[in-house]
Formats: sequence, structure tokens, C-alpha cells
Amino acid sequence: MTTTLITGGTVVTATGRSKADVLIDGETIVAVVAPGSQLLGTDLPAGVDTVIDATGKYVIPGGIDAHTHMELPFGGTAASDTFETGTRAAAWGGTTTIIDFAVQTYGQRVFDGLATWHQKAAGNCAIDYAFHQIIGDVNADSLQAMDGLLAEGVSSFKLFMAYPGVFYSDDAQILRAMQKSAETGLMTMMHAENGPAIDVLVEQLLAQGKTDPYYHGVARAWQMEEEATHRAIMIANLTGAPLYVVHVSAKQAVEQLAAARDNGQNVFGETCPQYLYLSLEENLGAPGFEGAKWVCSTPLRSRAEGHQDHMWQSLRTNDIQMVSTDHCPFCMKGQKDLGLGNFSKIPNGIGSVEHRMDLLYQGVVNGRISLERWVEITSTTPARMFGLYGKKGVIQPGADGDIVIYDPNGHTSIGMGKTHHMNMDHSAWEGYEIDGHVDTVLSRGKVVIDHNEYLGAKGDGQFVKRGLSQYLI
Amino acid sequence: MTTTLITGGTVVTATGRSKADVLIDGETIVAVVAPGSQLLGTDLPAGVDTVIDATGKYVIPGGIDAHTHMELPFGGTAASDTFETGTRAAAWGGTTTIIDFAVQTYGQRVFDGLATWHQKAAGNCAIDYAFHQIIGDVNADSLQAMDGLLAEGVSSFKLFMAYPGVFYSDDAQILRAMQKSAETGLMTMMHAENGPAIDVLVEQLLAQGKTDPYYHGVARAWQMEEEATHRAIMIANLTGAPLYVVHVSAKQAVEQLAAARDNGQNVFGETCPQYLYLSLEENLGAPGFEGAKWVCSTPLRSRAEGHQDHMWQSLRTNDIQMVSTDHCPFCMKGQKDLGLGNFSKIPNGIGSVEHRMDLLYQGVVNGRISLERWVEITSTTPARMFGLYGKKGVIQPGADGDIVIYDPNGHTSIGMGKTHHMNMDHSAWEGYEIDGHVDTVLSRGKVVIDHNEYLGAKGDGQFVKRGLSQYLI
Amino acid sequence: MTTTLITGGTVVTATGRSKADVLIDGETIVAVVAPGSQLLGTDLPAGVDTVIDATGKYVIPGGIDAHTHMELPFGGTAASDTFETGTRAAAWGGTTTIIDFAVQTYGQRVFDGLATWHQKAAGNCAIDYAFHQIIGDVNADSLQAMDGLLAEGVSSFKLFMAYPGVFYSDDAQILRAMQKSAETGLMTMMHAENGPAIDVLVEQLLAQGKTDPYYHGVARAWQMEEEATHRAIMIANLTGAPLYVVHVSAKQAVEQLAAARDNGQNVFGETCPQYLYLSLEENLGAPGFEGAKWVCSTPLRSRAEGHQDHMWQSLRTNDIQMVSTDHCPFCMKGQKDLGLGNFSKIPNGIGSVEHRMDLLYQGVVNGRISLERWVEITSTTPARMFGLYGKKGVIQPGADGDIVIYDPNGHTSIGMGKTHHMNMDHSAWEGYEIDGHVDTVLSRGKVVIDHNEYLGAKGDGQFVKRGLSQYLI
Amino acid sequence: MTTTLITGGTVVTATGRSKADVLIDGETIVAVVAPGSQLLGTDLPAGVDTVIDATGKYVIPGGIDAHTHMELPFGGTAASDTFETGTRAAAWGGTTTIIDFAVQTYGQRVFDGLATWHQKAAGNCAIDYAFHQIIGDVNADSLQAMDGLLAEGVSSFKLFMAYPGVFYSDDAQILRAMQKSAETGLMTMMHAENGPAIDVLVEQLLAQGKTDPYYHGVARAWQMEEEATHRAIMIANLTGAPLYVVHVSAKQAVEQLAAARDNGQNVFGETCPQYLYLSLEENLGAPGFEGAKWVCSTPLRSRAEGHQDHMWQSLRTNDIQMVSTDHCPFCMKGQKDLGLGNFSKIPNGIGSVEHRMDLLYQGVVNGRISLERWVEITSTTPARMFGLYGKKGVIQPGADGDIVIYDPNGHTSIGMGKTHHMNMDHSAWEGYEIDGHVDTVLSRGKVVIDHNEYLGAKGDGQFVKRGLSQYLI
Repeated sequence: MTTTLITGGTVVTATGRSKADVLIDGETIVAVVAPGSQLLGTDLPAGVDTVIDATGKYVIPGGIDAHTHMELPFGGTAASDTFETGTRAAAWGGTTTIIDFAVQTYGQRVFDGLATWHQKAAGNCAIDYAFHQIIGDVNADSLQAMDGLLAEGVSSFKLFMAYPGVFYSDDAQILRAMQKSAETGLMTMMHAENGPAIDVLVEQLLAQGKTDPYYHGVARAWQMEEEATHRAIMIANLTGAPLYVVHVSAKQAVEQLAAARDNGQNVFGETCPQYLYLSLEENLGAPGFEGAKWVCSTPLRSRAEGHQDHMWQSLRTNDIQMVSTDHCPFCMKGQKDLGLGNFSKIPNGIGSVEHRMDLLYQGVVNGRISLERWVEITSTTPARMFGLYGKKGVIQPGADGDIVIYDPNGHTSIGMGKTHHMNMDHSAWEGYEIDGHVDTVLSRGKVVIDHNEYLGAKGDGQFVKRGLSQYLI
Repeated sequence: MTTTLITGGTVVTATGRSKADVLIDGETIVAVVAPGSQLLGTDLPAGVDTVIDATGKYVIPGGIDAHTHMELPFGGTAASDTFETGTRAAAWGGTTTIIDFAVQTYGQRVFDGLATWHQKAAGNCAIDYAFHQIIGDVNADSLQAMDGLLAEGVSSFKLFMAYPGVFYSDDAQILRAMQKSAETGLMTMMHAENGPAIDVLVEQLLAQGKTDPYYHGVARAWQMEEEATHRAIMIANLTGAPLYVVHVSAKQAVEQLAAARDNGQNVFGETCPQYLYLSLEENLGAPGFEGAKWVCSTPLRSRAEGHQDHMWQSLRTNDIQMVSTDHCPFCMKGQKDLGLGNFSKIPNGIGSVEHRMDLLYQGVVNGRISLERWVEITSTTPARMFGLYGKKGVIQPGADGDIVIYDPNGHTSIGMGKTHHMNMDHSAWEGYEIDGHVDTVLSRGKVVIDHNEYLGAKGDGQFVKRGLSQYLI
Repeated sequence: MTTTLITGGTVVTATGRSKADVLIDGETIVAVVAPGSQLLGTDLPAGVDTVIDATGKYVIPGGIDAHTHMELPFGGTAASDTFETGTRAAAWGGTTTIIDFAVQTYGQRVFDGLATWHQKAAGNCAIDYAFHQIIGDVNADSLQAMDGLLAEGVSSFKLFMAYPGVFYSDDAQILRAMQKSAETGLMTMMHAENGPAIDVLVEQLLAQGKTDPYYHGVARAWQMEEEATHRAIMIANLTGAPLYVVHVSAKQAVEQLAAARDNGQNVFGETCPQYLYLSLEENLGAPGFEGAKWVCSTPLRSRAEGHQDHMWQSLRTNDIQMVSTDHCPFCMKGQKDLGLGNFSKIPNGIGSVEHRMDLLYQGVVNGRISLERWVEITSTTPARMFGLYGKKGVIQPGADGDIVIYDPNGHTSIGMGKTHHMNMDHSAWEGYEIDGHVDTVLSRGKVVIDHNEYLGAKGDGQFVKRGLSQYLI
Repeated sequence: MTTTLITGGTVVTATGRSKADVLIDGETIVAVVAPGSQLLGTDLPAGVDTVIDATGKYVIPGGIDAHTHMELPFGGTAASDTFETGTRAAAWGGTTTIIDFAVQTYGQRVFDGLATWHQKAAGNCAIDYAFHQIIGDVNADSLQAMDGLLAEGVSSFKLFMAYPGVFYSDDAQILRAMQKSAETGLMTMMHAENGPAIDVLVEQLLAQGKTDPYYHGVARAWQMEEEATHRAIMIANLTGAPLYVVHVSAKQAVEQLAAARDNGQNVFGETCPQYLYLSLEENLGAPGFEGAKWVCSTPLRSRAEGHQDHMWQSLRTNDIQMVSTDHCPFCMKGQKDLGLGNFSKIPNGIGSVEHRMDLLYQGVVNGRISLERWVEITSTTPARMFGLYGKKGVIQPGADGDIVIYDPNGHTSIGMGKTHHMNMDHSAWEGYEIDGHVDTVLSRGKVVIDHNEYLGAKGDGQFVKRGLSQYLI
């Protein structure tokens, strides 16, 4: 096997930073050593196959995006990134693992759904991948199937309080699934929006001729996110299930999560870059149909109400534990435009898998979070939260050689014709400028990105089995 | 320099655990390597001077006790542990760094106080030590002196809202000192009890003939801790000072801290083993004068009111960030007995510096906290909180070789004639049994404790300069 | 018309008490005068038809029980009190108005339901009565019907978050009904328990052989009341509807209400005597099947958890605004015993309409509430809350002559063979002793109860049209 | 004695309104009767000496201003209204009782201070008056004196957490005084601002040349009001004292009060018209020295921070119980101008005693509060809070004939040369327009104001002894 030494860099962890060299043997990190160290007389640089000079740069564990939807069928179309295009874009952006959602649709068997996702992904990925399981039909059969998920390396499942008739679980179903969660240790993931109530508002707005993308945000009021979040917390409280709320956007929902945690519950929250940077007024409210680019659920929130600032603060104080993308890209032409004249038909989703590491790093530059917190919320906590830690999320002997060399003196311009590698006809992040740059990305020891060049290959990425969450408090 | 390899153990960090060997060159860790690894053909075990077999054991960063009072003059006597006896006992218990409090008394110059403490400690310590600075007299001179503290390696100062006439600062003084804290980045540490009000209650209880140790706990009511905690938080809010509240014991005080943190303030709380295990009813209320053993301020709280359970929960949820001892030992004979017939004359303090690592590990055994959290609250966070991280609090290349090998299959019986090495005529922890054992302790690469034998020497320990806090959120 | 003068008593209002005589002309109060006053030379006592001496007694507005279920069909049987027996028992206990619930069942038209209840009550009542409207089937037709309710004197409607398949409304229905509430000003009343989740727990407990009445309380966990309360509050927040939560029993639900009110929402809570006095452990947990007497929903709560004490405090602080009975009596023999071997088949309900005034007065004696607060929570606030004030709930010129003369030196022993006049074969309040007594009750000027004698007649009571709530904050 | 009948009006109470006539015999209300009623044949209008036609108008209990400072020495000058001018202005505005503050200065005996205030007021007042007692020097002597206050008709005392060296009490003094409050039932009133901390900020601002009135508001930061409010609450919690916080202006202080009340404490808050209408930016920040008009403590708060809107809401939800004026007028010329070039020398105070009823009525017109709530917060609750209820604060037989006839179709223009009758050279309320008008004011049965004419005389007003609070929850 080939050996690689990353020298001269600053290794950043969730708790601090240090000058250290990292030695990789084949796919695995085998040593972290004092810089320039000649261990017992051994000249490491001379002895390895490859030396990567990281002087002046940060050496961090590869990003883990715990929420992606490659090729997801949605509203009569499908997310435009395949596992091939999406994971390659992820690699470009310094993400070396994704956790995508296998789907059990209504009436389907859970393991049939999982098998379908294995087929989609196998042999196509640029980086490693794992699966959460969407349980779209909680019934006796699927509850029994959940007993087998951990053995398949799937240690979390997702329910929806929204989308009646599609993925929606009612409270009886949620209760049963959470009992299973408490029993097995599987993490319950929750899309927390009161779908039945929201659907009434959607119907009423459309009836009033309010059909623009902006009204997507009006219909999905913060009260309905806060309510569902609280409801999920209380059913978790009753059952003892660990709970992870996905794509939190409303500050009031964050307050519910914080209160539950102060109360000792194992409750967690994820946000996404769009809820930190974008807004109802500026984006969903863009002229004409342009707002469709940013139609996602939960929706972008009002900046006047202060959700974005509060979300950055919550990231800082650990009231929100981590940042995923909810990557679910759709092209404007042929996809988003299905909702011309009816916002409820716009496929829900934003493509961000390529930009998460950069966008969050900009939070460091802007003084929103510390460098260590950046590593924690993008890699270490995702790994701990979803049972990947040790193999992923950390630079230590025995861990996979998933490493990003990030240049704080570099620069990244996001947008079409620039860094964009996602299979989309637009960028939701057009014009964002980042004061840093992903220089080099190693996936299990192999350099897949190097100074704006993709060196990897389809199929480099493997399925990773996950264990139970290592983050429970 | 001598080289040491710790092999076969499980290295535990604040975020996870892994099998890894640790190589120490002289005083410093130089590599963490995959177990049994033969780096580029080098046979590490064969090449080092000493191999320590840690198979089946935890390898953790040495404990950091951020709150001790060696030789502290108090109430006409002085804490019974000298820097020599106290730091040796600390080493026995797996603590490799203490941060003691240098005292500026009323009317004294700050740096004269600091110099006195340097004199007490220099050449006497078994392990490394650092200083916080007590500012017992906030005035124009001491405010100016605070500008020079960081250069002396003292990055924190402590004020008292209790003890009028001794260490007490009024709110005007606190405001001025916190402004200085905000300006310099020095951490404000606060003894948060409303002293003037408490002193009235003390006087009234004594006048009623309520002179037993139990009434020490009655006089220092939780309302007066909660109040002072809130007051400190609000002055910190106004000034922008970072705030660290010492020895938090009341659950209501914790709630104030949690609310401030949810609100985005840089506010932190420390608790001590006594507030996790001991109680007003069982200990302060022990028959006769025995309760004097546990007279400390803040006092032990009522178990019926649930403070202890809530404190464990707060440790788990990070509403309380770390555990120190407030080690301040006094003998029953000749010291504590000064307060026979008058609880207010009992010297305040409990001796715990030797047992903190064990007592907290028992929390892991009892399911109160995770193994990682144990390392975090006893070493990593103390290091980050007080500007020692990198050198202390972590096992990584470049860090000091401060390491504890802890045996989860060992056993420790606490008490006189057993593990006790503190200079006291009793143990506040008599009869506590721990399902684990400190096997080996290295201080800057030197084995100072090995299987119940002390191998160190007076003067091994050095003064450590600290930088600014690395924990600010 | 006949004239009556009540002399010598202490008139108690929601805000204070005063010595005053009350003059009633026919059915209506026409004057409140200084005691013994000879207005402009007129000798009032000499001029009236009847003088009632209330010396040493309290003269208060007749009680208003805003939550009763006479003759309610439930679980294959029907509440055992008819409008005749139930209102007569109410009169015995000092209640001069009830607000009962007309029911629209699933598939039925709203006004057909209302008409049915008018038929049940007309000509049968001993005291005045009004109706709330249960909307058991929120649909386009019933939403339209709600526009006509106010004209019928029905200014409030009730929804159920419990009882799927019977009265249950889902969140879409609740949203639509609350929009109507906001639009019309009709008060939304809510049975706030998460029925779908509770029904799962019921099914599981029964499957485990846990069939005793006690498990009724286990299945209907406080989390499910707190959750539903919060959900109702948030949908009210979104729509702007005024919200009144019925039969609140869990302290955590009270906390949700208090927070909403501190936040400015028009949200109110009612509790019942059973939640102030009785408990899960002592009553639902009584040996054998006896607990069935106290099966009601929401259920009795655990005394160990402190719900009862907290509820008294909430009454005192106005976090709970008023007390109704939720009177819904069932006999043990032939009714409650339907649930032998299956707690879920026990008809839900307790009979208290006769004892509310006494039980709450005992709270005055016990120091739980003030005398004024007693009048406020049993009469004045119910009148204001539900649009009866002016005619009911107050002693002032123009108001109906609904008056109770209450003797604080009297005594009342509750139980079978004692005060009991409800159509039940047991008393849920057997053995309760009250340090006071309902001496005389006037309904619209007519003495219907006088010193333990019933002087009224079937049909004395008339239907009262209500206006919109006069209590909105 | 003369008899008066007020006919045709709408009597408004704290709980509702009704058409009723009010009969006054001499100084006392003797009957409230149905309008136009001919009681037992008596023709009331024909029989009385005077008939006042209140058709189309509100008949309300006279206003009670529970916080005034006539002739108060302050900062080397004295409040410009004497008891004569101030109470006459009060009468003009519909206030028929004031509670002024007798002062015990440092070193003085309590009853000497009280005697001084009796001398100032006796024979000079246009309306009735009572006293609170300021305890400016809590010591053994004054604590003992407090035992005698109730016998003097003084059932409340006030402490200051601000103004070190003048009225300031430290926490030891507050604790002792509150113990006395709990023991005697006397209400503790508190000026809740952290004076020692504020004085540092004042000194620093002045040293920076920030001398304009605006900086008065900057120095007295909301954090220092919130902090002191919380501190007072906690000492009250410890001692069991009832607590009434005067002139609350910061929304965060309101939140502290609301939390304490939800927690069951007898804690109350008063606000003033200036905190409902005026702001830091618009008033204190007026150009030049004009802001001096609105220098008072606590200060006006920032409108951008939303304090005013929150205060209206708090009035509505009873998180704030009542509104007084803190009337303490100073002329610009010769008084306020003492602080030219140094805001700390501007006498603190605003003159509002004449306008409270009107300004609050405008809140009814503006939809902020209900008509009933207006009566409650301006008269009924002040009476109950401070032991005047029955005699004052209500229209019922036995009560004093203190009545205001308020015309909702009238209009009032506030300002110099308009309604102004206070002894000031400016109006703090210049230009305020009120959609209502005080038509007629009766004080103990005598008409003192009638359609813009003053009919009273110096000395009409008498000292009123107060009992203990009737409002404790």
C-alpha cells in the first residue's frame, strides 16, 4: 500500500488546533506526529511515497454531510444530482462522506426501499456514503423491519410530520416508531412541520391567487415548525427516544430544542446553510419566478424576524449541533418550473452539497463561530451523531484517511462557470465569495481533489455501515 | 532525552476513543500511532527506552484541577495542604496540573500578592501549577495591575460577592473589574453568593442559638446563590465580560447560567464533587459537630430539593462545563473545631484534590456521564477554559506528556488509611468506593505514580503560563 | 311582581366585599344599598314583599358552571343526570346557571345537534342554562353553520384533539375552525389531549393485561396533555383565535398556558375540582374496580408530581382563570361497570355539579384562595368568559336575581345519604366535609333552595342567549 | 347632608359595565340603582338635592394615583408642585386620591419624617391623600418604628436600590426590612435599579464628555433595572415579603416579575404613562437640552427595543398591575437647568398627575386595553393594592363619593395654555390629544370639577388611613 505524509499543516479538531504531521498508510491514518519529527531516527518524509505540503494551511477531517437526497423522486420529477454527480460535487467542496436517505414509500417493504438505494449508489460514488432510512409507512411490518436496520449499518430513520399522503406519519405512528427507537437505540430523525395545517394554508393561498414562490414561505409559517418540533419532543419525552430534528429554520423551534436539552432530553437539531444566509424577503421574495430556486421545506425565514442571526448564535452555543445541506437539487428548467403559477408544485430543494464547508468556513472568517466549531459542526459531530466516529470525523490513528487541506489564504467564488459542479442549471449560491479554499481532498488516503483538479473516479466511494449514535448526552 | 511508549491502551478524548499508542520524547508527546504499528518499518517498542503496557486500560490526558487553595490563610488558620503535600496528593489521584489562587488582600498590591504565591509554590510542587489571581481590593491601582496579568501567565481573576470585609467586591467594583475583563480578555471568575444578606442570616441564626454546622447551610440559602449568579450575569451582559461562576451548587443557579448561555452570553459554570454526591441533610446535618467536615461555601444543598441529580444532569448537558475541587482542606482538630458552638467560625473548605478523577469516573460507572465527557470535564475543558489547551488537556503531538493510565477493572477505596495522601486528619470522602483505579501517572513524561507508588520528587512541578481562554463560545 | 330584600349580609364581588342590602324586583336586581338604609325616607324592609336576613353571611352571585354534560351519550350509555335532575342538584349546591354542551355528531348538521339539546333541556331545568356547541365534524357545512351560532346565543364551540373516530378533529380541521373563531369572535374551546397517541398506549396496556382503572391515568400521560395544549396554542397563535382549554389537569399544561398569556395571547384555562383535590395514586389507584368512579379525561394526576398544589397556585395567580365541573355522571352499576376488565370501556366522567361551590369555598377556608377569588372563579369570570356578564356573574342593578346566601359558620357533609342530589349510585366526593353551607339560593328572584329545602320546580330554568366573551385580554 | 343622584350613565367597574344610577348621601355612596328606577314608589330624582345627568357618559370610581412626590426635596431643589397645586391638578384630571411618599432621611427618625409630611399636606389638599413611608435609613430604630406604621394608616414602605449616599439600602438592609414586611404585612415598595453600578457608568460618561440628557438613559441601562428587580424578587422569596416594584420601564424587568408571579410569589409591578408613550430616542434624545424635561428614573427606554409595546401588553395581561405617575415635577428654568452640562445634576422627575386618567383612556381608544381594565389599573387595583378598597376604588354602597363622569365623546388637548394646571413652566405631554374628557369630578360627594371649572377649595382633601393590601394573591 501507498504511504502519504501531510506535513507542515495545522491540524484542527473539535477542541483545538496543533501543528502536526499526518501519516497515512493505504486508506488509513496510522500516525499523527510532531511536525518534522524523526521518530526514533526515522526520516518520515523520505520514507513515504507521497509528501503533501500543508504549510500555512488547515488539515481537517473530511466533511460529513448527513443530509442529502441524490436522485430523490419528488413531485413527479427527481433530484437532478445522481449519486455520481452529487458525490463528485461533494468531493470538490471538501465533503468526503454523505449520508443519504433510502426511502420506504407507502405500501413498500422497508428493505426493498433500502435495496433500491443501494442499487442507485453502488459503484457510482466519488466518496463514501451511508444511509438513513425514511419510513414512509409505519405499520406492523415496517416496525418489525426496523429491528434489522442496525445490522445493515443503518442506525437512524426519518419520519415526516409534513406531506400527508406521501411520507406523513400521524402521531400514533410516530409514537410506535419512537418506541422502537427507544428500544433499539436507532436515532429518530424528524421533519417537523405540521403538514395537515400547512396544506390548508396552501390551499387557501392558492385560492386567493397567491401563487408565487414567496407564498411557499407564508404557508409554512414558523408556528407550524415550532409546533411540530414541540410535539416531536414530547412524544420523545414519553417514549425515551433520542430525537434529531432535521433542517431547523425557525428560532422558536430552536428555543424548543434548547429547553428540551436543558431539561435533560436527548434532543438534537440540524440546520442548513440556507437558514444561516438566505431569507424569505430577499430570496423567496425575489422578482418573478426566481424565488423558486430557494423553495425548500422548512422554508427560508424572515430576516426581519431575526431567524438567521439567532441560528448562527445557536450554532455557537450548541443549541444547534451540526450543519447538513438537505441537498436536493432541481433545475429551473423542466423541474422548478413545474410550479409556475402554483408554488405548491415547485419541487422542494436546494443544491448545496458542494458549498457547505466553504459557507461555514466563511462563518469563521465573519466571527460567527470558531475554527474548532467549524470542524465540529461539519465533521466531528455528524460522525458522532450518526455512529461513524473513529472511522470518520477525526484525524487519529485508525481513522479513514478522509482529510481536507484548507487554505485560509485562498479564495473561492461560488456560482455557475466558477466552482459549480452540481448537476443544476443554476446555483442557489451564485455570487457568494469565500475567503478560503479547499486545496486538497483525500478520501480513504487517495487524493481525489488537488488544486482544482478532480483526480478521483466513479466508484471510489464505498458504502459505510454505521453504528449507534455516539453523541447521546 | 528518554523516550516512552504507552502501548495497547484506549486513548480517550473529549469526542471519542481509539486504540492507539502514545510516544513521548522527553517531556513531550511526539506521536500518536496505530497500535502495534511499525511506522515505515520502525519497531517502536524496541526503539524506546520505556514501554508501558496499557492493555485494557484507558489512556487519558492528566487531570486539571482548576480550583485549589493550597496554604490559603482563612479565618485565622490556613488550609492544611501545602503546595508540596497538596500537589503530591493530586498526583496520586491522576491530576497533573492545578490552578491555584494567588491572593491580593485588601490594601495590598496585586503583584505583591502574586509574588507571595510564587514563593509558596516554587520548588515545592509534584506536578505543574498555574495561578488565577484573586482581586480582593478592586481599586484604580489593582485595575491597572490587571493589564499586566496576562504577561505573567495569569489569564483570569476572581471576585467575591460574599465575605464583606474580606474579599468582597461591591457592584461598582464588579462593574469596573468586568469592564477590564472585557477589555483584556481575562476571564472573570465569580464567587456568587450575596454576602451582605447571608451575613444577616448568620447573625440571626447564631442569636437564636442555632450554632451547629447544619445552620451554615441554612444561612447560605439557595436564593442568595441564585441571586448573585443572576447579578453577575447581568453585569457581564452589560460589560461584555466573559464570566465563569465557581463552585455552583444550587440548581436554580444552574438555570440562570443555562438561560444566559441560550441567550448567547459567554457564561460558564463549574461544580465540585461535593455538590454531586453530598447533601445538607446527610452531611452538614450529621450528628454533633461532624458536619463541620463538610462546611464549605457555597454549601451542600438539600437532596430533597434535588440539587444533586440536577447537577449531574447539567454536567451531562453542558449547562455546567467542568468540575474542579475547590480543594481547601482543614483538620478537624485545631482548625474546624474553631467553630465549635459557632458555625460561622468553622474554616470553610473540603479536601478533594486527590479524589476528583475517581469520583467523576464513578459517575461514568453509574451511567451519569459518558467516558468522553469524563475526560472533557476533568481535563480538556479546564485546559480550554483557562488557556492551557495544546500543552495540557489533550493527547496529541506537541502536548506535555501529562498522561493517566486508568484501569476500569481496578478498584479504589477512599478514606483514611487507604488512598488518603492529603494533609488532613480525616477524609470528607471516607468510605467511598470507586470501580476504577489510577494505575500510572506521567507528568511531562516522567512517571510519578506507578501502581500505588510515588516516584516523583518535590519540585518536579513547574509554573505554567496560561493564555486567554480558548473556550469562549 | 314580587319584591325581595336581602339584608344584613356581606356582598362579595371579584374585587372586594362590602356590607350592603340587595333589592330584587321580580326577576331582576334593582338596587344595592347601604345596609339599613332608608333611601330618601323610604323604609325598604317594610316596603318589600319578602325580607331575607343574611346577617353574618356572604351574599354572592349565583354560581355558573360552564362545563356540564347532562344526558350526554357516551360509550354506549348516557350521563345519568338529565337536565331535570342535574340542574336541580346544581341549585342545591348554589349554582344558578349551567352551560351545557350541545353536540354535533359526525355527519350531522350543527343546528340539528343544537335543536336536539334544546329539546332535552326545554321545560326541564331548575335553573337557567346556556349551550356551547360541540363541533364533532368540522367540514364546509359546519364551518358555515358556525356563522349562525352567535345569533342563536351560542358564542363558543368545542373541538376535541382526543377520541379519534368520535369527536376528534385533526389539525387541518382545527385550523379551519380556529380561523372561523378569529373571524366571528366565537371562543374556541379545546379538549387538549393527543388522542391518536393515547389510543396506542391504551391498546398496548390492555394487551399487557393492565386493565384496571389506574391504567386509564397511565395511558393518558401528562406529556400528551401538555403537547396538545401547546399545539392548540400555536394554531391559535397562527389564526388569532381566542382559546379556552377545558379541564386542565397537568401542571405542565398550565405552564404552556401561562407562557402564552405572558406572550400576549388570548388563551385561557379551566380546571375542575377533581384536579384540585383528587389524585392518580389515591383515587384511580383505589383497590379493585373502585377507581372507576374517578375515570375521567383528562385523568387525575399524580400527587407525588405535585399537580394538585400547582393547580391551586395557578388558580390563585390567574394562570388558570376559572373552575367548572365537567359534570358527566355515571352510575357504577350498569354504567361504569361496562369497563370491568377493560378500563377503556369505563364511561368517562365524574359528577360534581352539586359540590363545586362548596369544594372551592373549602379552598378559601384552607387558605388556598381569597374569598373574592372564590366568587371570581366560580361566577364572575365564567360570566365574562362566556358572554353572560351583566345578566349573570355579578350583583348589580339590572342583573338577574341569581344569588346565593352562603353561611361561613355552616357545615356541609358531602356524600350519599347526606347532601347528594345527583342521579348517581355513589358520590365521587364521599366523605368530604365543608366548613360552610349554601343556605339560600335565588334564581331570577325566586327562592329555589332555602335551608335544605328545594322550593323550585321543573321548568323554572330558561335558556339564556350568550354574547361574545367579555374577558379577552 | 346633601344628596346627589348621578343618572343615566354607564357605571364601569373592573369587571364590567352597566346602566345604573348612583345615589350619594353626604360624602358616601348609599345606593346603586337601576336607571330611572322608582324604588318602591320613590321618585329618586325628585327627592335628591342634586341630579347630575351622565347620559352617554362613563361613571367611574375616582382615580387613585399611588405614586406622587409633592414638594419632594431632590438634588438641591424641590418638586415644584405643592400639595395644594398638585392635588388641585390631580382633581382636574379625574384623580381623587393620591398616595404620596413621606420621607425618612438618613439619620432621621421615621415618625419625624412622617410628621413633616403631614405638616406639608394638612389643610392644603384638594382631594384625599394618604402616605407611603420612604425608609431612607434602615437601622434598628427604623425597623422598630415600622411596627407602628400600620396604626398610623401607613401600610407600605419604600426602599431604594439606587441613589447611594441618599436613599440607598444595601442588601443587608433590604433583607432586614423585608423580614419586617413579611412579619407585619406592610407592602415593600422598591425602586429597583442597581445604583452603585449605575453611578460608575454616570461617572465614566461624564468623564467622556457625554453630558447631554440622552446619556441619563444610557447610564441607567435596562440590565441594571432587570438585575435589581430580580434581586428584590429573590430577597422577597427568601423572606416571604410582598413586593411592589415601582415605575417599571424595561420589558426585561417585566419578564422577571411575570416569572415570579407564575411561580406563586406575591410580586407586583407598577408602570407610569411615560413608559407607555415616551422613549429614549424621541424624548431624552431631543435636541439640545430639551430632553431634560423627560429625565426621570427609571429612564425612558428605547422604542427600537420595543419596551413601550411590551408594556402595553403587560398592562393588558396583568403582568403589570397598575399605573401611577411618579409625579415629581420640576421647572426647566431654575430647576432642570441645574443639569446643563451634566445630566446627573438634572432633577429627576416628570409631572403627570393631571393627565394619567386621560392618557390611559387613550389606551382604550387605541385598542390597547379594555374600558374595564382602564378602571382597574387606575382605581380599583390601586385601592386594593394599598388597603383603600371599599372606601376608595369602587362604586358601591358605603364607598366614598369619589366619582368621575367621563365623556367618551369629549376631547382633551394637553399642554401649556390648555388643560395644564400643574405648577410647571412646561408640559411633558405637550401636544397630546385625548379622545375623551373629564366632565365632572366628585370628591367625597362634593363636585370639585364641573365642565372645566374648579369648584373645590384648599383643604377639601383629608388624610386617609390605609389598611393592609387587599390584593395579595
